[in-house]
Parts: sequence; structure tokens; C-alpha cells
Amino acid sequence: MLVIDLIFSAVLFIQGIWMEDIKTIDKGLENAEIEWTRLTTIDGEKGILMYGGYSIDDIIAHKASVEEIQYLFLYGELPTQSQLQAFRHDVEAGYKLPDYVIDIIRKLPRESDAVAMQMAAFASMAAAEVSFKWNKETDKVVAANAIGRMSAVTANVYRHIMGLPPANPKPSGSFVESFLRATFGKDLSREEIDAMNSALILYTDHEVPASTTAGLVAVSTLSDMYSGVTAALAALKGPLHGGAAEASIAQFKEIGDEKNVKDWFNKNITTGNKRLMGFGHRVYKTYDPRAKIFKKYAESLVKNSKEAEKLFKVATALEELGIEKYGAKKIFPNTDYFSGIVYLSMGFPLQNNIYTALFALSRITGWAAHFIEYDEEEGRLIRPRAVYVGKGLRDFTPITAR
Amino acid sequence: MLVIDLIFSAVLFIQGIWMEDIKTIDKGLENAEIEWTRLTTIDGEKGILMYGGYSIDDIIAHKASVEEIQYLFLYGELPTQSQLQAFRHDVEAGYKLPDYVIDIIRKLPRESDAVAMQMAAFASMAAAEVSFKWNKETDKVVAANAIGRMSAVTANVYRHIMGLPPANPKPSGSFVESFLRATFGKDLSREEIDAMNSALILYTDHEVPASTTAGLVAVSTLSDMYSGVTAALAALKGPLHGGAAEASIAQFKEIGDEKNVKDWFNKNITTGNKRLMGFGHRVYKTYDPRAKIFKKYAESLVKNSKEAEKLFKVATALEELGIEKYGAKKIFPNTDYFSGIVYLSMGFPLQNNIYTALFALSRITGWAAHFIEYDEEEGRLIRPRAVYVGKGLRDFTPITAR
Repeated sequence: MLVIDLIFSAVLFIQGIWMEDIKTIDKGLENAEIEWTRLTTIDGEKGILMYGGYSIDDIIAHKASVEEIQYLFLYGELPTQSQLQAFRHDVEAGYKLPDYVIDIIRKLPRESDAVAMQMAAFASMAAAEVSFKWNKETDKVVAANAIGRMSAVTANVYRHIMGLPPANPKPSGSFVESFLRATFGKDLSREEIDAMNSALILYTDHEVPASTTAGLVAVSTLSDMYSGVTAALAALKGPLHGGAAEASIAQFKEIGDEKNVKDWFNKNITTGNKRLMGFGHRVYKTYDPRAKIFKKYAESLVKNSKEAEKLFKVATALEELGIEKYGAKKIFPNTDYFSGIVYLSMGFPLQNNIYTALFALSRITGWAAHFIEYDEEEGRLIRPRAVYVGKGLRDFTPITAR
Repeated sequence: MLVIDLIFSAVLFIQGIWMEDIKTIDKGLENAEIEWTRLTTIDGEKGILMYGGYSIDDIIAHKASVEEIQYLFLYGELPTQSQLQAFRHDVEAGYKLPDYVIDIIRKLPRESDAVAMQMAAFASMAAAEVSFKWNKETDKVVAANAIGRMSAVTANVYRHIMGLPPANPKPSGSFVESFLRATFGKDLSREEIDAMNSALILYTDHEVPASTTAGLVAVSTLSDMYSGVTAALAALKGPLHGGAAEASIAQFKEIGDEKNVKDWFNKNITTGNKRLMGFGHRVYKTYDPRAKIFKKYAESLVKNSKEAEKLFKVATALEELGIEKYGAKKIFPNTDYFSGIVYLSMGFPLQNNIYTALFALSRITGWAAHFIEYDEEEGRLIRPRAVYVGKGLRDFTPITAR
């Protein structure tokens, strides 16, 4: 069943201590199955992503609110009106951050990485709040609360970076409206609110990438949920994971104008000097269904920003060329290809890793749902092994004799 | 080669989306091999733990300094006098914490968990300091610096909990002397310094437990080293991992007096009501070599503290009974059984998870060495899979129709 992609033949005679004959490791744990899940599944061939059995195309077409999807992840079914109201109350209870969290965010230099600032905020809450200790009776309410806190943390991280005074979301309007109003200090348009709602839905979960894995490992020791989120943020922060939305748009900026696309492509991509950012995915072998939705929002929102409009033209020209060259190899735009253009159009600047912080604002729902699921069903300490290929037993030489 | 301990037979017909026949998962990734390593190996049958080929018994017998072992982990060989001097300079460069780190520690409530306070401090440095971004040319120096910073963070976490003003270690004397002097504001005895030096050596590394795994997952995304340490701390914090030293001594406290040991054991352990804390280990099938060394230090240091002396008597009586009952099943005291008594004898109080913070002060060396090794040799994004057992494709029902 398991396909091992690397066979390393090592006969190790470690001076009588132990001996191994043939050893294999599963690089990047690509074939290791870490959990059972009821949350998300992907049909990479057909380009279908399902949350709890609902395809994301269907979810977006029905204009579901992100709160409904948050509920679906934590409780396994879509909420009724009254269930949704109670759930929103639990989320909104997280909006008012403790003073020390605001203080800690604002002690950090304004040039700081936004995701690491979220990480410092969640670590500080893990330190201070005993109520977050693991407890199966309360874990869903703690998770809803953590989603609310992530909204407040993200708004305050943004405001600190921008030199604005602190502001927490208020429990009025939807999750997205409350977040955007706290962040920008004003109401955005209906269209922008809808785009943000969809973006938060699209990034909610994607099986077990590195961030979810790091968080699962942390909570498998019965560390608290906020420590799990902290570990997940530590992994999300890396450029091979959450940073792809920023990398895509940075590439459009580098190209600068649609008339440069072909030359840039030949000079950088055809030669193998650079990777085409926002293209390709380990699981999807066709157009990422999320990318299609982001493209639609980008197309309609770029009218708000001259810069975004220009970058969108670059993006579509580059997309056409990329598909022409790589489509036959089943390499297509992924979710991060157009999302940065959507954020830029709404007024989020491309700096401090802010787009990845927006990813985290969405993904905390998936993280928390996986943690709860793992704790309730698997509950096993995660502790893999290493294959020793070092020195055999040798005598210690004192420093004076070295 | 891989032994799969769970076979789950699930025939899932997901409304034409996909179908699985027989699926297995490796619970807790117990049989997954995440990396090659040259750092540490354990012979669980014979009770031998080796760092880079040197047995820890030999290392302790030769009175190696913890700085020599830190160097061994990062550079693969024991240092010469001049190599050690240069390395100590790199470590000491980390002693002076940026002001915002001290401020952040002191913004946290004094009741906070000490490990999560270390986590908030490391997250804040990951946020603010671009020089920590991953770079193969500088990673060993960044690691040495991080070890110095962990000393300063741990001393300041302790001092904040105790209501003392901030103090960073000074580059005078050994790593241990600098740490203890900053922590307690005075010099400890030679015997106490030696015990702390050995404790830091004994906790340096132990293959890939949950903390190291969480950190490896984070750095596999090319997140920075401080984020890797943050993720590792998130996992270490859990009671199934770093909390065992505190759990052992808490158990001695609960028993209270050596004359209660037999009754307590019959009432709690024989009946299966409680687990015998500090006994047993997944890898060791004999007496943990680290436990023997900790016992020797505990034996000689308890004269400093009436409370520790009393608890040591409880511990040895309980040890005798435990071995009598479980020795035949190859269950023996592990490293955490006596370490808490050593810390208590030196003046560290049993509160706020401080003993686990001391574990982290040692283990950061192992974490950093694994991160560097992984990045230099494996360098593969860690991304396991999940097995979907949820709902098949279903139609979305709008909330008004639910």
C-alpha cells in the first residue's frame, strides 16, 4: 500500500551496539497517513474540493456565509438559523482581546512579519489563560472563541503595521463585516465584503498541510489549543507554505506590464531560472477549483485599484502562457495565483506577509477542527522515528587532549 | 519493513467521487521515519544513549561542559579549546535580549505557564528579526545565538514569575554559571553548578519526540529557526511530553511521606486508578541511563532542602516498589523520575511549569541541530496525508431551508 520513494541501503556496524540492514524513509512523510478525517477531501483529477461533502463551487454559488462553514467544520453539519446565532455568539465572545495581547502586538517593531505577530499573540494567550487547557466538553466553544480572537488579532496586527491605533471587531454585522470594519475603520462595499467572505471560505481547510501537521503534533501532547494554533502559524509562515499568494503577486509586480510577459517567461521560466509561482499543486492535476473563484472576484474588483488592474492583466497573460506550456503536464493555476490581486484590490498592501496573515484568519477554522477531531478520535501522541546514520560508539577525549 | 498496527477496512462509495478499499494508518506515526540523523541514538535494550557516538555515561564521567556538547550537536565533533572559545562567543552574543522581548515577557500575567512564556518570547523574535531567516551559511551561528537567547529568556521568565526585576546572563564563567547567576542573582555552589551542567547535557536530545517533530515540520516550510523553536515549545508544553518531571515530583508530594508509599501504591497504582509517573519509556527496556545520573545528583543535593530530602525518601521507596512490581515487564524509572528533585534542591520551585522550561533550555540545542541537519540533508516539505471517512458529495441546502 505504501509507496516508498527512497531506498537507502546502509549496513551499519556500530561497534557491536546495533546493526541495520536496509532502511527506508518516506521523504516529507508524503505517504504517511496521520489521521482519519471527516472534514475535507479533494478529487485532484476532477478538480473538486469538498467540505463535509459539500463542493466549494456549490457553497460559493449559494452565497453561504463563512460563519456557516466555520460551524460545519466544528459540528459536522450546516447550522440552522438558531444554531448559527448561538455559534456567532461564541465567536464574538473572542473579539475583545485581553489588554496584554494588544500590548504585546504593539511592543513588536512595525516592520515585523504579520504571521509571526499573530504567533506571538497566540503564544501569549496560551501562556496566560488556563481556560484554554484541553477539555473535550468545551473544545468546540474554545475553538469558536479562538476564531473570534484571530479576527481581533489580525485586525490589530494590520493596524499596528499601518501605524493606526488598536481596534477590536464589534459584534455587529457578519464575521467579515466586523473584521473589515475593525481593520480599515470604515465599511467596505458589498462586493468587497462578498469577496472577503469567499476568500475566507476558500482557505478554510485543505487536508493536512505542514501547518495543520505541526499543530496536530503539538496538541497530540495534550498541549492547549492556542499552542496548537501557534505551532501551525510557525509552519504557515514559511515561504513553501503560506507565502505563495505573496510570491505570485510579487512575480506579477516584477514583470510589471503585460507586454513583458513573454520575454520574462522565456528568460526566467523556460530556462529554469525561476519557478512559476502560483502554478501547480501536489494534489490537483487540473485547474484548482479555488483559483477559478478567485479569478472571478479579481476580475470584478480590480476596477478599485489601478495597480491591481495592471497586475491582473499581467496575471491573465502569464496564466495563458503558463497553461499553454504546462497544461499538458497537468500543471495549472492554484488557489494562490489570483488571491493576492483580490486582497490588493480591497486595500490590503503587499507587505509584512499580510496576505499570509489573512490565510491564517481563514485556516484557524480548519486547524481547530482537525485538533478536535484528532483529540476525540485518534488521541495518540505523535512520535515518529529517525534512522541513525552517525558515528558508532567511540571514546570520549578530554578537551585538553584534543 | 513497516509494521502497521491498525488495519481499518472501509469501503467508501462516495457518490461516484472516489472509492477506497482497505486503508491503514500508522497511529501516532510510530513507524514513520521522518529523517536520517547523525545526532543521537538509543540502544533501548542495553540502556545506552549516545550523542554523536559518545555515551552519555562517558560524557558525564569526563565532566564535559554543556558548551562542548552544544558544539558537538551543531558541528558533529567535540571542539578544541579555540573552537570552543569562538563558539562560546556566538552563544554569549545572544545573552542581551532586545528590549521588546523583556517587555513582552513582563506584559504576561505572572501566573503564566513558563514554557508558553518562552514560546511568546521566541515568537516575538521570529516576528521582528529578519536576520533569523533561513540561510545555510549562517545557520550554526544563528543556532548558537538562539541557545544564548534561550538562557536569557528562561532567566527572565523565572524572574518575572518570582516578582524579581529583569536580568540577562553576563558572558563571564560557564554557560551554566551565567544562567544561574542571572536567574537567582547569586552564585550557587560548585556541586549545584555541576548538577545543572549535567541536567542540561542529559536533556539535550532524544531522537525525534513530538517537540522536535513539530519544529521539523515548521522549518521544512523554510520558516525561520525561531519559528521552529516556537513550534517545538508548543509541543513540549503538553503534559504527555515535557511535563513528566513535574508530574513525578507532584506524585511524591501527594504521597507526602515514605511510610505512605505502600498504601498509596496499592490504592492508586495496583488498582490502575493512576499511572506511575516517571516510570517506563517507549524505547528503553531497562533502567534509563539518564535516570541513574539524576539519582546520584539528587542523592547528594537533597541536603540543601528539607522538602527535597523528604521527597527523595518517598521517591526511592516508590522506586523500589515500582521495580519490584514492574521490573520484570521491563518498566523502570526514566529521566524525569529524579530530575525534579535535583531542580527543587537547587532552589527552583515546583510551579508554573518551570521544570519543563529548564528542559527547553537544554533541548533547544537538539532542536536546532535537527533543524540544520534536516534542512541541509533532507530539505523536503513535510506534508502527510489524511484518510477521508466523511460524507460523500451532497447538495447544499440554503439556511432558510434547513
